Amino acid sequence: MEIRQLLSQVSKGDRRALAKAITVVEDDSESAAKLLSALRPPGRVFVLGVTGPPGTGKSTLVDRLIRIYRRRGLRVGVIAVDPSSPITGGALLGDRIRMTSHADDSGVYIRSMASRGWSGGLSRATSQVVQLMDSAGYDIVLIETVGIGQSDMEVVGVSHAVIVLLMPGMGDDIQMSKAGLMEIGDIYVVNKGDLDGADAMIVGLLSLVRTLKSRSPSVVKVSALSGDGLEKLDEAIEAIRSKFGKGDKEIRLRSIRGMMVEMAKGNVVESFLRRTGPRADELSKQVLAGKLTVAEAAARLET
Amino acid sequence: MEIRQLLSQVSKGDRRALAKAITVVEDDSESAAKLLSALRPPGRVFVLGVTGPPGTGKSTLVDRLIRIYRRRGLRVGVIAVDPSSPITGGALLGDRIRMTSHADDSGVYIRSMASRGWSGGLSRATSQVVQLMDSAGYDIVLIETVGIGQSDMEVVGVSHAVIVLLMPGMGDDIQMSKAGLMEIGDIYVVNKGDLDGADAMIVGLLSLVRTLKSRSPSVVKVSALSGDGLEKLDEAIEAIRSKFGKGDKEIRLRSIRGMMVEMAKGNVVESFLRRTGPRADELSKQVLAGKLTVAEAAARLET
Repeated sequence: MEIRQLLSQVSKGDRRALAKAITVVEDDSESAAKLLSALRPPGRVFVLGVTGPPGTGKSTLVDRLIRIYRRRGLRVGVIAVDPSSPITGGALLGDRIRMTSHADDSGVYIRSMASRGWSGGLSRATSQVVQLMDSAGYDIVLIETVGIGQSDMEVVGVSHAVIVLLMPGMGDDIQMSKAGLMEIGDIYVVNKGDLDGADAMIVGLLSLVRTLKSRSPSVVKVSALSGDGLEKLDEAIEAIRSKFGKGDKEIRLRSIRGMMVEMAKGNVVESFLRRTGPRADELSKQVLAGKLTVAEAAARLET
Repeated sequence: MEIRQLLSQVSKGDRRALAKAITVVEDDSESAAKLLSALRPPGRVFVLGVTGPPGTGKSTLVDRLIRIYRRRGLRVGVIAVDPSSPITGGALLGDRIRMTSHADDSGVYIRSMASRGWSGGLSRATSQVVQLMDSAGYDIVLIETVGIGQSDMEVVGVSHAVIVLLMPGMGDDIQMSKAGLMEIGDIYVVNKGDLDGADAMIVGLLSLVRTLKSRSPSVVKVSALSGDGLEKLDEAIEAIRSKFGKGDKEIRLRSIRGMMVEMAKGNVVESFLRRTGPRADELSKQVLAGKLTVAEAAARLET
């Protein structure tokens, strides 16, 4: 089988095979289903989500982390999820630059995914790519997402640990709470720590963190550009990664559950959209004719 | 019934009742289902989507459009969908400023919706709010979305017409095509038309538009700030709105179908997530124990 052969090459660490397998998954065809059912990832990869609003320096931080892990001999995969990338060109360009800066390093694989056209959801695709990278023997996958949109929240569920990147001047504590940021981070990082307001932000975050009941996330100040504070961040990540390495069930189940639910949800949505096409046309006409409300038609469409 | 009373007030144009009804819908409770099943919107509202990357001036353009429609005596609802709003504070603040600038005008209602926490999808919530605004007698609803993420694509389906806002220097034609932008716009607007490259961008868009088979979108150059070119944009919108007003089936069915599918899809996802909780926990443990792959567990979770 071509698929088996492809996966066998992936598991040997063949980068071109990995790229091809990811494309198969992205195209979301029957081949993707075959590929995934043949995939038996060892569950060895540590998944680190890096999220935060645009402009906080996520790419720079991710680049720093790649270098830290490479110095330790770890193989690093990066999934850059950027809803706006192909439009601004920014992320794609940045991606290309990053690719180039790690181009000679076979231990780094960077892939950007635009969040369009995924009827089954970007998070499903991300889950699948994580598993491919796991099969390919990567030690760490960094998932970089922009903003805190719905897809970011889902991607968070796939991670073993989540870094929320912030910077001074981006709003007060209340806004962060409102945005749901305090629900998702394992490590809060204030980047551009040399700017005015960085210390005040740290103080605010620490007091917010103290109000949390079930979790106690870390708070770290860094400058991704100069490298200040990165050792502290590294320590905070390693504290979680070593638990993962020791087989901590809670951490492992979180990512497994996240990936499984996102994959299943994606499949459910896709099969719903596939089977309801003609029926939706017919029901739309009944709504137009005033025989049904949109809500009534939606209820019929569901069943 | 409290719900019936609320809806009766909504249909009389009571703004506080509308605000309350939207909150009920956002909270996504049983009351929301009751409320929606009691809702019989007249289908009179024209839904105009305004999308495009951050920084292109969507808010300024929307503000201009509000003024144009108000001068004609039309009642205008605005749904500002901003995934990153609560974090940067930008959109919420902007929203408040806009609210203030139209605060004395009972013919304008502006509501921002952050794209978090919607297990059933932001597009479902948007569909529901459109219907509430329709019931409340608004003539036009402007849906303002950021970027071209997944939720933007869904929101687009709810609209009768979609404006894609661009500006010079944001990437070339190929990038726009890649982003799926050429698939969704009925009107392409190049804002900040006095900047270098605006005319080149118009030329590029016109040649892209000519390659489309089933549609022929308009291309307009404006300066939302100075007001230049707004008459042309207004004409392009009115060309579509007048078809809508005359009962053009294709245009009407498009939005009805979009709202219905998004509502049903949201319900399907929500009910999937609700019923699979305990099962997901159990299956995750089997994956952790190596008895199942994530893909196999996801397949079992679906059924």
